[in-house]
Amino acid sequence: MAQITSQKEDFSAWYNEVVLAADLAEYSDVKGCMVIKPYGYTLWENIQKVLNDRIKALGVENVYMPLFIPESYFKKEAQHIAGFAPEVAWVTEAGGKKLEERLAIRPTSETIMYHTFAKWVASYRDLPLKVNQWANVVRWEMRTRLFLRTNEFLWQEGHTLHATREEANRMVDEALKMYQDFVNDHLAIAVIGGLKSNAEKFAGAEYTKSIEGIMKDGKALQMGTSHSLGQNFAETFDINFLDKDGVKQVPWPTSWGVSTRMIGGIIMAHGDDKGLVLPPKIAPIEIVIIPIWKNETEKEKVTQYINKIEKQLKNLKIKTDWDDTKSPGWKFNQWELKGVPVRLEVGPRDEAEQVAVLVRRDTGEKIKIEFNEIKNKIKFLLKDIQNNLFKNSSQFIKTHVETYQNYENYKKDSGVRNFFAIVNWCGNPQCEEQIKNDTKATTRVYATKKKPGHCIVCQAKTSDLVYLAKAY
Amino acid sequence: MAQITSQKEDFSAWYNEVVLAADLAEYSDVKGCMVIKPYGYTLWENIQKVLNDRIKALGVENVYMPLFIPESYFKKEAQHIAGFAPEVAWVTEAGGKKLEERLAIRPTSETIMYHTFAKWVASYRDLPLKVNQWANVVRWEMRTRLFLRTNEFLWQEGHTLHATREEANRMVDEALKMYQDFVNDHLAIAVIGGLKSNAEKFAGAEYTKSIEGIMKDGKALQMGTSHSLGQNFAETFDINFLDKDGVKQVPWPTSWGVSTRMIGGIIMAHGDDKGLVLPPKIAPIEIVIIPIWKNETEKEKVTQYINKIEKQLKNLKIKTDWDDTKSPGWKFNQWELKGVPVRLEVGPRDEAEQVAVLVRRDTGEKIKIEFNEIKNKIKFLLKDIQNNLFKNSSQFIKTHVETYQNYENYKKDSGVRNFFAIVNWCGNPQCEEQIKNDTKATTRVYATKKKPGHCIVCQAKTSDLVYLAKAY
Repeated sequence: MAQITSQKEDFSAWYNEVVLAADLAEYSDVKGCMVIKPYGYTLWENIQKVLNDRIKALGVENVYMPLFIPESYFKKEAQHIAGFAPEVAWVTEAGGKKLEERLAIRPTSETIMYHTFAKWVASYRDLPLKVNQWANVVRWEMRTRLFLRTNEFLWQEGHTLHATREEANRMVDEALKMYQDFVNDHLAIAVIGGLKSNAEKFAGAEYTKSIEGIMKDGKALQMGTSHSLGQNFAETFDINFLDKDGVKQVPWPTSWGVSTRMIGGIIMAHGDDKGLVLPPKIAPIEIVIIPIWKNETEKEKVTQYINKIEKQLKNLKIKTDWDDTKSPGWKFNQWELKGVPVRLEVGPRDEAEQVAVLVRRDTGEKIKIEFNEIKNKIKFLLKDIQNNLFKNSSQFIKTHVETYQNYENYKKDSGVRNFFAIVNWCGNPQCEEQIKNDTKATTRVYATKKKPGHCIVCQAKTSDLVYLAKAY
Repeated sequence: MAQITSQKEDFSAWYNEVVLAADLAEYSDVKGCMVIKPYGYTLWENIQKVLNDRIKALGVENVYMPLFIPESYFKKEAQHIAGFAPEVAWVTEAGGKKLEERLAIRPTSETIMYHTFAKWVASYRDLPLKVNQWANVVRWEMRTRLFLRTNEFLWQEGHTLHATREEANRMVDEALKMYQDFVNDHLAIAVIGGLKSNAEKFAGAEYTKSIEGIMKDGKALQMGTSHSLGQNFAETFDINFLDKDGVKQVPWPTSWGVSTRMIGGIIMAHGDDKGLVLPPKIAPIEIVIIPIWKNETEKEKVTQYINKIEKQLKNLKIKTDWDDTKSPGWKFNQWELKGVPVRLEVGPRDEAEQVAVLVRRDTGEKIKIEFNEIKNKIKFLLKDIQNNLFKNSSQFIKTHVETYQNYENYKKDSGVRNFFAIVNWCGNPQCEEQIKNDTKATTRVYATKKKPGHCIVCQAKTSDLVYLAKAY
């Protein structure tokens, strides 16, 4: 196993090497498309399981809509097509014939869904309409990176229609909160949530909110978005309902989604120079058992003992695996690389003493544990690791958010390191563009708090605060 | 609610009307592509849950491979491209540019997967390699029918590589058995499993086995297939491994899949003139509670009582819903149409007596049950319904399989009704083609038993028996 590049030396190289060496994913021979390998796909399945339940708990039902969007539909909403057209893949031939109308492969499904919704909604009794789909989407990108930006990726997209603007806005917040809770509780990543600027919002939305995580190189990763779409889309696609008074009204749509990109977030928020560090709650394997023996007699004894331990762990519903291939040293490195939260080492001496040695992936701490303690202590340990990862992530945000009033200072600091800056911003897209050109940082989200001051670029008076960061 | 056409009058119209009226799916505005609605998608999710576990129990891991297949890959295996080319949808433009090479949207993923497998496999230690993916696939068809044949559908495709032919053949049988058990146990559909003829096998396979269900109109529905691919594909895509003696060998691939087509099978194997009849094990709702009241006093009492009943059912983990919209009569029809296995009617008199009336969807039988009996009897009842549906399906096969020796008799009978015929067949594709031209029936699978006789068409001596049927 080759040594991986350290984060400090080259974070980007570190990321690519970890994704490949930990068997999460690899590039396929199709430009910019990835192969998600079993270890990576299990992470996605674990994410799906939890999120699917939480989405349903919001009263949302799963559906499946076509992969294809006729060009005429796609073009109906002007801002939407302007935003997505450069990234679309087009089907022009099918079934041995040239198609009369090109079909876009969905980059997102608003336009195809709204055509269907128009048939489903007639009365206020049909609202709210709340559906979700787990699907693949295609956005043809110039530059791709495994999980973070690929021509095809997997996601869920929720789409709802509401009778009033207020209700739609509440839905946007509920979806965002669901994502934030999930990312905090399960991925153990602290995030900053809030409103995006107009330049950064979803193409065609009235407004977009997002959650932004901070990666270990100080860059931001947008990990989930939730959009209020105003009434444009609904009007364009002719969705109407009769309200309680029999008056024709246009409903208020929202949409929201998270994708396999989240896996990139897990890697970059927790990983270290030894590789992945996975939060127990979504780890494909929570505990890996490494047997140590020198001869057949030892092997037999150790194996029997491990079977006993494994049975205990399985009873506790802990995802366990054990590995008796290759040398212990190689295996230690390998399972550290794969980010398994706990390594359990068992040799002949441990068998004799009825103990085992636990090694935490997050801290490297070694803990000798008696066989009889496994039942009581192991769940607690996994919980402690989960909490510790979230604590570290929260701490990392705190130490990487800085307030700036002086633009020259910000430009200087931003030139040498990555962090989140809180600055006053007047809301003018020209100032936003200026920051981007000068520093490569973009506005991530508005801060929820306000503070009177002057726009960091143009000095106009404003109370609005915005987070700036370089982002993936 | 409009009356649906009876099965006898027009089975095909009955099918379409049930799919739409029961809210399972509808056509989208994209030619031949369907919208799977929440009720239909829940059926698919319930199928996925069980099958996903069973697939994993075979030592198979989930992955995700690209939607796109470069034309050059797709063309490498001559039989494969010959079989699939007429149905392929091609992407020719993406990211604002004409592509240098067309990309096929996967109709199946052998060719893209094998390119990746060639990188994954080097030694006998890497075998068997067993992966599966849940994905959408596209096959552009001339005529489409919801669930049965649509331009895009959802499926799982398992792909494995083995060191020996024997092991690959065993895998083919294991996968087929898994499908057969699932279809029997969960979908309550009896099937005939066996080897397909060369004309009916998967394009590029050495041989294909399938399970064939019989629908209520007497036609066959292929519900799952499992293929042994010989070594062609592996050779074409340059997959090799070193065996234990260090000798370079070519592995033996298999592939196998089931799709959303299964939902069509559920509809047509169990449905009746009132609509769907769903097996409890995969029904989105197992018991629907219908409250009956005339005034607010009654409403309050009945509602309280239903809450008590619902709590009991939820404790038993029975999927329950209740419906207090519209009139009881309308609801009876509606939930029968939707095929909910048990309807539970609760009115003020039932509340007073602490009883409820259960109505079985499969038999129409009404059963008065005391509140205290719910806990003990309801699970048993659902199991009985599940068993009864399978018993009926098994019986239906038995009464719809007939043996023929005389071709003229077969042609005559086949012209007036649909059924499975067992006939001797010499294996000559010309005789198979003749049968198809004369009767529209195709060879479904070889029977496992053999019997000396003469080919029903050409009279050549043969012991091979084959099932013939008109098929979806």
